[in-house]
Amino acid sequence: MDVARAAQVSRQTVSNVVNRPYRVAPQTLERVTAEILRLGFRPNLAARSLRQERANALGVELHAGSGRRMGDIRDVFLVELTIASRQHDSHLVPFAAADFEHPLPAYEDLVASKLVDAFVLTDTRHDDPRPAWLRDHGVPFASFGRVWDEPEFSWWVDVDGATGVADGVRHLLENGYSRIGFLGWPAGSPIGDDRRSGWVEATTDAGVFVPAWRADALGELGAAAAAAAPLIEAIGPGGTLVCASDVMALGAWTVLRERGLTPGADFGLVGFDDSDLAESFGLTSLRQPLTDVAENLLSILEHARLGGNLPTQGTVFRPTVVARNSTNPLGAPAAPATGGTSAGNRTSSGGST
Amino acid sequence: MDVARAAQVSRQTVSNVVNRPYRVAPQTLERVTAEILRLGFRPNLAARSLRQERANALGVELHAGSGRRMGDIRDVFLVELTIASRQHDSHLVPFAAADFEHPLPAYEDLVASKLVDAFVLTDTRHDDPRPAWLRDHGVPFASFGRVWDEPEFSWWVDVDGATGVADGVRHLLENGYSRIGFLGWPAGSPIGDDRRSGWVEATTDAGVFVPAWRADALGELGAAAAAAAPLIEAIGPGGTLVCASDVMALGAWTVLRERGLTPGADFGLVGFDDSDLAESFGLTSLRQPLTDVAENLLSILEHARLGGNLPTQGTVFRPTVVARNSTNPLGAPAAPATGGTSAGNRTSSGGST
Repeated sequence: MDVARAAQVSRQTVSNVVNRPYRVAPQTLERVTAEILRLGFRPNLAARSLRQERANALGVELHAGSGRRMGDIRDVFLVELTIASRQHDSHLVPFAAADFEHPLPAYEDLVASKLVDAFVLTDTRHDDPRPAWLRDHGVPFASFGRVWDEPEFSWWVDVDGATGVADGVRHLLENGYSRIGFLGWPAGSPIGDDRRSGWVEATTDAGVFVPAWRADALGELGAAAAAAAPLIEAIGPGGTLVCASDVMALGAWTVLRERGLTPGADFGLVGFDDSDLAESFGLTSLRQPLTDVAENLLSILEHARLGGNLPTQGTVFRPTVVARNSTNPLGAPAAPATGGTSAGNRTSSGGST
Repeated sequence: MDVARAAQVSRQTVSNVVNRPYRVAPQTLERVTAEILRLGFRPNLAARSLRQERANALGVELHAGSGRRMGDIRDVFLVELTIASRQHDSHLVPFAAADFEHPLPAYEDLVASKLVDAFVLTDTRHDDPRPAWLRDHGVPFASFGRVWDEPEFSWWVDVDGATGVADGVRHLLENGYSRIGFLGWPAGSPIGDDRRSGWVEATTDAGVFVPAWRADALGELGAAAAAAAPLIEAIGPGGTLVCASDVMALGAWTVLRERGLTPGADFGLVGFDDSDLAESFGLTSLRQPLTDVAENLLSILEHARLGGNLPTQGTVFRPTVVARNSTNPLGAPAAPATGGTSAGNRTSSGGST
């Protein structure tokens, strides 16, 4: 304890001041008490106090600029996490790593500054150095996204992409479509592989699996359009595509539009994420239950803070199909081709993003 | 001070313990010292300490779900603010108001909990109750966006929308276009009026102002497309539209595509915000200097924290034109019509948003 050094006494003397002050010489007592009061206001004590008795401060890494990628934390999730944190007597401390590929310095910095007590991880991936480092340093964390490399000592919450995509396939079958392809990311990305497997399973179950009706692209609009064009050709009118993301579905959407095809009436489309884009374009998509995910993560961390021993676990939540015109075979006008006519079933989205 | 009550002694006794402990009876001294130590770790002291000697904690309101609107804080700005906060020995505490229209309870709550020392305001608007409330409660703040109702006592940083749009008009003129319309928000929104005025001024200066080449829509894609269609008709091939947002420009983009027109070669388009959308669609847009804005806001608040007296001020930063294919009259292929050919000049954007 720094009090001893500051007051130039032994630790035993400090202990005596607190527990047996009548044994301490008055001037020493005065000096030590003054130091205790003074140091009681110092950063490390304040932070320790904050950690022990106050709201839990949770570090959340944001990803900057070109480091953005699949599985990034999104606006909506951050809002959900913010709301959930208040309900759990916590607050978030967002931070950004200078280098997405080497995030540990930012974590070390934040832990050393005692500004946070625990972390919510997102964007987990293979060879992610963070879980092991946090475990080794005794810093609690819970993650949105599976902890791929060290599942046995971590808490994670994830969305069941395979079941979500399978639900999307079943939604298409129920709406009368039967020619169902998949536009996804190249094999090797955990999230992409998970989502693709749902297409394989559900189309196989229904007896409509056609292995050739699959294309891959990285998650960029132009590349998605280029990959979608021959696939749409191969599947033909009346067909459909389930896509690994809304951006990819939008790539397919632009191909359809340029060929004079109406999404829904002429060709079905399902995206993933239920982003603002999906809403704007009338695109059926899979909504991730981000409120549930955030609440679950905060519950885990609150339990950890209170000293509870939770069994290591992973929890998966099932997305829900949000149906819009892109899977309406009756040909309801897909926005925005005919302007505002279908605006009634959509809420307005931000004008500046 | 709560120590007196907790130890069941007078305030004078507490004072004596600290300043003249030799005058205090040993048992009283022990009890009071123990209470001082105990209370020294309590929330309010910890928070006060944090406020006085540590990183400045800055509250930042996030907007949830349907409350999103023009001028919302964006992902990118939050990241910039996060990076700038670390450089200024501060950190952010994001929070969300239960009701966007009545945000004060959330601010009161956060101030009362002593979790934050100051606020960064965004999404300022007319009849915004926050600036006056914060001033009355002595809570420092700086705002991204003009403080419309109380300019005389506040610090704000804003982007010069009028000059930005005027720069967009000049960019079109330099590229050989001369028929330039404007697609914006209905009159009465400060940001929208500001941006429109840049179109009026720059086209008037160049002698190409046509009042009829203006349409308004709320910032939703379908409504923007509906408003853009007759305007594109009126201006005719070889014309252009400057738009108040990327979403609006995208509405016009879909209209062009459905008529078989290529943005850029057949009709010029300029958006505003330089969002991921602009990048994905090859849309020329106006980039807000968010790094500068964030740095400026943090400098203001650091100065305020250190007790400096800054003159009340507003600072405006000028956006920059980011040129892409939608203003290329030579007909370079606009993404994503021809797939990946134009991907080289774009960075990839997140696949999950």
